[in-house]
Amino acid sequence: MTRKTYYTFETLHLPRGFAWGAAKAAIKKEGRYDVAVMVADKTCAAAATFTQNAFAAAPVILSKKNICKTNGKVRAILANSGIANAATGEEGMKIATQTAQQLAELTHSSADEIIVCSTGTIGVQLPDDRMKSGIDAACADVAPDVKHFENFVRAIMTTDTVPKAASEQFDCNGKKVSVLGCSKGSGMIRPMMATMLGFIATDAEIDPVFLDEIFKRCVEHSFNCLTVDGDTSTNDTCIVMASGASGVEIKPNSCEALYFETALQNVMQSLAKQMARDGEGATKLVEVCVKQARTFEEARTIAQQIANSPLVKTAIYGKDANWGRIACAIGNAPVAVDPRTICIFLGDLEMFHNGQPLDFDEAKALEILDREEIHIDVTLELGTQEATVWTCDLTDKYIEINGCYRT
Amino acid sequence: MTRKTYYTFETLHLPRGFAWGAAKAAIKKEGRYDVAVMVADKTCAAAATFTQNAFAAAPVILSKKNICKTNGKVRAILANSGIANAATGEEGMKIATQTAQQLAELTHSSADEIIVCSTGTIGVQLPDDRMKSGIDAACADVAPDVKHFENFVRAIMTTDTVPKAASEQFDCNGKKVSVLGCSKGSGMIRPMMATMLGFIATDAEIDPVFLDEIFKRCVEHSFNCLTVDGDTSTNDTCIVMASGASGVEIKPNSCEALYFETALQNVMQSLAKQMARDGEGATKLVEVCVKQARTFEEARTIAQQIANSPLVKTAIYGKDANWGRIACAIGNAPVAVDPRTICIFLGDLEMFHNGQPLDFDEAKALEILDREEIHIDVTLELGTQEATVWTCDLTDKYIEINGCYRT
Repeated sequence: MTRKTYYTFETLHLPRGFAWGAAKAAIKKEGRYDVAVMVADKTCAAAATFTQNAFAAAPVILSKKNICKTNGKVRAILANSGIANAATGEEGMKIATQTAQQLAELTHSSADEIIVCSTGTIGVQLPDDRMKSGIDAACADVAPDVKHFENFVRAIMTTDTVPKAASEQFDCNGKKVSVLGCSKGSGMIRPMMATMLGFIATDAEIDPVFLDEIFKRCVEHSFNCLTVDGDTSTNDTCIVMASGASGVEIKPNSCEALYFETALQNVMQSLAKQMARDGEGATKLVEVCVKQARTFEEARTIAQQIANSPLVKTAIYGKDANWGRIACAIGNAPVAVDPRTICIFLGDLEMFHNGQPLDFDEAKALEILDREEIHIDVTLELGTQEATVWTCDLTDKYIEINGCYRT
Repeated sequence: MTRKTYYTFETLHLPRGFAWGAAKAAIKKEGRYDVAVMVADKTCAAAATFTQNAFAAAPVILSKKNICKTNGKVRAILANSGIANAATGEEGMKIATQTAQQLAELTHSSADEIIVCSTGTIGVQLPDDRMKSGIDAACADVAPDVKHFENFVRAIMTTDTVPKAASEQFDCNGKKVSVLGCSKGSGMIRPMMATMLGFIATDAEIDPVFLDEIFKRCVEHSFNCLTVDGDTSTNDTCIVMASGASGVEIKPNSCEALYFETALQNVMQSLAKQMARDGEGATKLVEVCVKQARTFEEARTIAQQIANSPLVKTAIYGKDANWGRIACAIGNAPVAVDPRTICIFLGDLEMFHNGQPLDFDEAKALEILDREEIHIDVTLELGTQEATVWTCDLTDKYIEINGCYRT
């Protein structure tokens, strides 16, 4: 059996100052949770990243405007699954604005302090009546416990087969700081600045400008190192909210800042890997590490070219040690490389050394390809930088899921 | 039944001055043709394009060097399938050079006037003994008729399910000029400057510099408008040879030049469409046309983004009119667009108009998606240029073919 989750909800560290609520509003089929809210006790420092897709969804456009306007202040988040409210024109923007207004009233906050997120089918209007009652019900349900957090996470799932969450906790002079994250996403995943939907809550106290700086760095090394199928969605949104309820202030150039950034990055990388592992139809998590590059960006570009190659991904599914496809993908990346200094490893098995193919042990290769986690390592001999990208194999199940998603 | 070929070999127009030969050299499995030669009666004017992949195969490196050195003079082409001779280091280059030398001796020409092409598994060495006897046998078999041309085309096939060929003929003052082309390719197809392997022969008489100019333009509007899976191969080579045997000279700014370019472009576009239709596992040919763009390049970039989206391609396979995925793909292209001026059509059915989703007739959409050829039209309202890109749907058969290609 494929181990798709790392945690049980009970083991997660919940930060103080937040509560969650969810409702079944029939936006998705099958009576599942599909409208959810995360509400802070008071206005939080926040940072967010959004899709760079030109068809950015109405909630993305609205949320981006809000967080700019408030210089990083957020009180509550509204999320729904089932319908993406993307490519929906003026009507879609009207509904997104209405829902934000409704949540602002229910939480006694300003409409500018609300973030709204949608995920699901593109090009379909959200039913405003069902959204309205869903928001009322989710707000009536709000509580600061793990059960309600779990319902929140389930409410943002679409083709995900498992909920995705992670947390970290660290000590500062006897006070505990928690970082808790969750995300959804399993197809249309190649984040540019964010993933489908990702929500992080912490009880650290931190200035929004400094939070933004740390958060952007963590996004670069987590969600922006993830690809399932190379398609960036119209609805990517990732946000972190800091309540300050731990009483621990995170200042630049402090030990606390290092602990905090490490915790945040661990949570976000865990979520990225959980999403890759649960990629649509996936049977394997694939970790591609490109080393000895001139820059992190060049390393990541090559790693993504490998991770996005349908031929590499189908070979891994078929347990075929066809490393030539990895070489081909490297050669397609828009980065100057010299095959004569490149080495390619599958697990710890070297297959190509400084431009020359090696006779490798097929039985050992098959044993490596039989595992649930596949590691591809490439060394370039061009510099000292490296990057890791996470993806999954490409299977007939992906075709099945996406051949009949809407109908 | 899917109609995968447009022609029968008997109806093709063979240019004068060329002959073909093929052999079964056990490079591929199953006793099929796998080594082939195209030999001209005398040295021809020629133009060629090659892959931009940094892991360019040994035959690509050699052929590129040869055609540069001779300023566009080619006497004969050697092609093999089964093994790509890519990522094979010095040994691979030695074998490519040996085979070119052997063909030069057998055709009494200079080794610089030989083009060599390989296609198949990457990272495996060509067996030099089997290549040697294969080349001898192919040269002994050479003849200027359609049966031998057909064997040549079959010898370059790998996962292709049908051979791909096309021809055109035009009249100049009572003299006939023929353009004949063939190609292979069905996976690892996203040509950048050429396709997997494409060979064009014509009996027109033309200066190699002018031929190169016309040929590059035709490549841009044919093979470079084709994608199956977004992966550019290590072995892409496309070449045109002009024997002059028709006695018709093609000069710049003449009527003949117009006829010739039209014929060449028609042949190459037909081959591009045949390759898309026979894409690995494909059930449908998909034609994506982006109109009213600022430039041809911007139109093609957007069309390719749509044509490469696995979500668009699986939706077409599943006959799901999920046009939101087309919008999402447009938004992902690195081209500045405004959703408010964009319209999206499936066949003649408009689904999205100037930024607004339309209520469309699902029954009519299903009828369109039931066809063997799917047309997606996008208008941008940004300018006057347009581009058409050909691709296919993405099916479980693609996964099956590529999950176990090598083993």
